[in-house]
Amino acid sequence: MAKPKLFVMPQTRSGTVLWMNEELGGVCDIELVNLKAGEHKSEKYLAINPMGKVPALVHDGVAVTEAAAICATLADAFPDRGLAPAQKDPNRGAYYRWMFFAPSCIEPMMLDKLGDHKRENDAAAGHGTEKSVLASINHAISGKDFILGDTFSAADVVFGSTLNFATMFGAIEKSGAIADYVDRITARPAFAKMMEANTNFAADLNLS
Amino acid sequence: MAKPKLFVMPQTRSGTVLWMNEELGGVCDIELVNLKAGEHKSEKYLAINPMGKVPALVHDGVAVTEAAAICATLADAFPDRGLAPAQKDPNRGAYYRWMFFAPSCIEPMMLDKLGDHKRENDAAAGHGTEKSVLASINHAISGKDFILGDTFSAADVVFGSTLNFATMFGAIEKSGAIADYVDRITARPAFAKMMEANTNFAADLNLS
Repeated sequence: MAKPKLFVMPQTRSGTVLWMNEELGGVCDIELVNLKAGEHKSEKYLAINPMGKVPALVHDGVAVTEAAAICATLADAFPDRGLAPAQKDPNRGAYYRWMFFAPSCIEPMMLDKLGDHKRENDAAAGHGTEKSVLASINHAISGKDFILGDTFSAADVVFGSTLNFATMFGAIEKSGAIADYVDRITARPAFAKMMEANTNFAADLNLS
Repeated sequence: MAKPKLFVMPQTRSGTVLWMNEELGGVCDIELVNLKAGEHKSEKYLAINPMGKVPALVHDGVAVTEAAAICATLADAFPDRGLAPAQKDPNRGAYYRWMFFAPSCIEPMMLDKLGDHKRENDAAAGHGTEKSVLASINHAISGKDFILGDTFSAADVVFGSTLNFATMFGAIEKSGAIADYVDRITARPAFAKMMEANTNFAADLNLS
């Protein structure tokens, strides 16, 4: 079987899926999409992702976009790596919960906050308020090492990447349980490998 | 095994998970959370979902929030109902792709549009532009009956619910392939059963 192929660009949200790839032991081939050269707007790339965004995955002829969806797909494709609870494990629900929460609640809350955008009706927005998002994040990680308790999973790659970005850009304060969690997951060897790969990719593309 | 319990409120995004429940043949118990009476802000409910939002699912003692996560969880918990591709089926990636795309791209695009909110930097927002979201939606559904082709899945419940809302509220024009798709999925018997259940729940709660 051909290896899955990841389409990525350094200094973008691609870090999430590159980290996932390292947690899996490097199961994917990597293809750089040079955004500075406009390669994400090429006909070939738009056929994979009409959003014109990285990352994307092509595996067995099927294109997958959205960093969280790519992580979920890879976790299922390589079940022996143990990065997802089994399909009928009760923890499967918690795994999905926080995997969806990151892009659909933390991300828009972060955009609102960094863009200084006030909503007239918080109830209408599925992502709620800053206060409720922070309460949920603390609920997810307080008193345990990882989203699922003792076991690291792809949900930590997705949720943790988002939280790492949010604290890095100042949308969420890095303190307490959030700081502990972010430090814990970014200390993983696979995270360091991803950072190193990203640096090498940036050099390949002559990015500063 | 106890039935999974859905916490819902009529006239909210709960419709998505109620529809999923009907597609599964009514596998869940239903508990109404009266938002008008503030029940979503009770200590008991906030322990399930600190966002103070419906829907939520509790199954085998594990709480799940986010409508898409609930649908993914239920599809996996009842695999014999055939609402998700098998874990190593290549289509699993496409299934996840559009399940994540709906809450993390269509929803924020809809909120931007209905709130008349312009972004300074579309590239920074993971959900991109209205144009790229529409191109992606058409890419997902043009020339086939359902997200996965001929087979209806939980991805259609999630993606289709979001698209149905978006066209209903005027954020997305109901025409062409989008109109055909929305009409096709809302014509399903399970969708009608959900609408009927919602009407009954509203009567139970004395909602107008």
